[in-house]
Amino acid sequence: MSGSMISVAEARDRILSGLRPTPAETVALAQAWNRVLATELRARLTQPPADVSAMDGYAVRAADSVLGARLNVIGSAPAGHPFGGTVGPGETVRLFTGSVVPQGADAILLQEDTTREGDIAVVNEAASAGRHIRRAGQDFSAGDMLIAAGNKLTARDIGLAASGNHPWVNVHRAPRVAILATGDEIVLPGEPLPPGGIVSSNAHALAALVRACGGDPVVLPIAADTEDAIGAVADAVGGMDMLVTTGGASVGDHDLVISGLSKRGLAVDFWKIAMRPGRPLMFGALGPVPVLGLPGNPVSAMVCAILFLMPALARLGGLPAGPPPTTIARLGAGLAANDWRADHLRATLQAGPDSQLVATAFGVQDSAMLRRLSLADALILRDPRAPALPAGASVKIIQLDSLGI
Amino acid sequence: MSGSMISVAEARDRILSGLRPTPAETVALAQAWNRVLATELRARLTQPPADVSAMDGYAVRAADSVLGARLNVIGSAPAGHPFGGTVGPGETVRLFTGSVVPQGADAILLQEDTTREGDIAVVNEAASAGRHIRRAGQDFSAGDMLIAAGNKLTARDIGLAASGNHPWVNVHRAPRVAILATGDEIVLPGEPLPPGGIVSSNAHALAALVRACGGDPVVLPIAADTEDAIGAVADAVGGMDMLVTTGGASVGDHDLVISGLSKRGLAVDFWKIAMRPGRPLMFGALGPVPVLGLPGNPVSAMVCAILFLMPALARLGGLPAGPPPTTIARLGAGLAANDWRADHLRATLQAGPDSQLVATAFGVQDSAMLRRLSLADALILRDPRAPALPAGASVKIIQLDSLGI
Repeated sequence: MSGSMISVAEARDRILSGLRPTPAETVALAQAWNRVLATELRARLTQPPADVSAMDGYAVRAADSVLGARLNVIGSAPAGHPFGGTVGPGETVRLFTGSVVPQGADAILLQEDTTREGDIAVVNEAASAGRHIRRAGQDFSAGDMLIAAGNKLTARDIGLAASGNHPWVNVHRAPRVAILATGDEIVLPGEPLPPGGIVSSNAHALAALVRACGGDPVVLPIAADTEDAIGAVADAVGGMDMLVTTGGASVGDHDLVISGLSKRGLAVDFWKIAMRPGRPLMFGALGPVPVLGLPGNPVSAMVCAILFLMPALARLGGLPAGPPPTTIARLGAGLAANDWRADHLRATLQAGPDSQLVATAFGVQDSAMLRRLSLADALILRDPRAPALPAGASVKIIQLDSLGI
Repeated sequence: MSGSMISVAEARDRILSGLRPTPAETVALAQAWNRVLATELRARLTQPPADVSAMDGYAVRAADSVLGARLNVIGSAPAGHPFGGTVGPGETVRLFTGSVVPQGADAILLQEDTTREGDIAVVNEAASAGRHIRRAGQDFSAGDMLIAAGNKLTARDIGLAASGNHPWVNVHRAPRVAILATGDEIVLPGEPLPPGGIVSSNAHALAALVRACGGDPVVLPIAADTEDAIGAVADAVGGMDMLVTTGGASVGDHDLVISGLSKRGLAVDFWKIAMRPGRPLMFGALGPVPVLGLPGNPVSAMVCAILFLMPALARLGGLPAGPPPTTIARLGAGLAANDWRADHLRATLQAGPDSQLVATAFGVQDSAMLRRLSLADALILRDPRAPALPAGASVKIIQLDSLGI
């Protein structure tokens, strides 16, 4: 039964090898937070541009600044108003944090180490040469690499890019992902619900996941369970970077998404993976548009989205792409041996002794239980044929909250 | 010298006690990802609405479904098309995943355990009563709590809200935060740079941080270093949930932000904290608008924003608010004893043995070095008067990447 199926890792590799990062667009720095840099940023200036004071105080010649010395205050240079002259012997200039250190001075006498008497500054503690001076280029010099391409820009990066004098940046265009939910039984939230009908949740959850991964979701109208209705989506995917479908993959004896889209030229790469929840998963291409077919069960759809769609969005968006990050937790309760399919158990997390995480799987793991998925903190990863484990054993987990989804 | 200053924890408590969550607004579910729920969501329907099949197969009476039995297929009920009749003795109805189980049936015979011969389904493996049936309400029942107020909505929550039939949700309005950078020496990125000038980075980094925390930043024009220019901001903060200033707090002998805003009615709560970087920090109120005055040094501004502005945004946004989350790491290199100020050392993280994090502080911790801050993975927290620590010792850290900033 497992013969025709491929592993989770192989499926992910095959999906990623079929995807290329989106091209770049230029955006204002103010819009660039959380976007992925497409062109490296190098400093356009030297920072600080000159030697500046790190403190409030006085620019002095270290040789003059002995205990009890009385220095002539010949000027004041607030930040942004450099002193044009030179500090000569016995002279000093009032400075502030960020002020350019004037010519002739080589030390900063701290304000709190000084007594001011009219135009005289009395030295109460000697200043040493170079101290409290930020040298030109201490942060960076013109031409230095500030941020490499492929980084998702943090708030700190935005500050650094500004500081390097970049009002605009090139970022990867947000991947546009069309989302098609299929099924005769589903209706949109708030719409009249026929007998046997259920409310469509997958498209909305997936749209949110796409947004969380920096993508731009396009939710298509629900398609009925016919080949023609599903095939018609081929007319809607122009300009999309990916099409994601849910449902239709296990309706009766054949796969409606595959048969419907095949009439419109779908080339299927693979469509079955040895995993649970979410066995029927399809990857292929509709002309230039990659197609990811997710299961219809809400939990299966989201678990497959975490394992396959999130890495796909990372690749499309210009980020390093691979398996979701895992950490180690201890089991709060024992687990039975696993069968031949990789399993992904919904679990809660608590902080255990030594602040190690303790993961406890829900007793019932039905793939239609969306409330449990919403309450879950993590997925416990179980390899195919993994042995039974007692409480306290170490397991690999994917932390859902840290993924932002 | 430390007498007039307050601790980091006391400052944060005083800021948080001065803030209230924003009121609610109604948004479409499709816009609700990452927003903070202001009104609890309860299920508007029961899910599944009736007993449904968890698998593709046949609805049967368990008593009939013995090995070798030949059952009359009297109908087919795809999901969304319930079978109107009753399954009698010797009869069966074709079902699919999600199909409503028809009256009379109490078991699901799996498709793979059946041979179909025209209108006859031959039982190859007996079905047991109740198996593969999802009971009505297995996920939730009408009226059940789905998501409590105060939760930031994940992609999974969006799916759950949809599934509970909520096209609209009430969320806290995004906090509107006005950001004022002050300083004669600063100009916007790309603008002509005068001698001694530097490019403004704080306002842009803070705007990105506000966005990362779910807020709505309003960047005000740069104010010159005069009381009048700074005081004029009082005319711009109507409708804002907070005003954040940077710089102006240590220009010469008095604080320009405090003196400028005081003329316009600023009530100062406190303005000095025993911490590094970022000693001059002010909290107060301009009429109904809370005011947070951050230092002008870029690193100080960001560290103070992490310690004080992020919790403030959480409180304004309706989330639980407190200190940033910390974890434990081992030191990659020893640290000297700390002085009387809490310190926040910029550090890199590596995965050490046992996948424990190893934090190594940068050798130079100058508060103007923005490139280092951008490269830092964490802040190492050092309590006032903390003793020297050798490499390998455990320290508390704030992980910057997990904060999304």
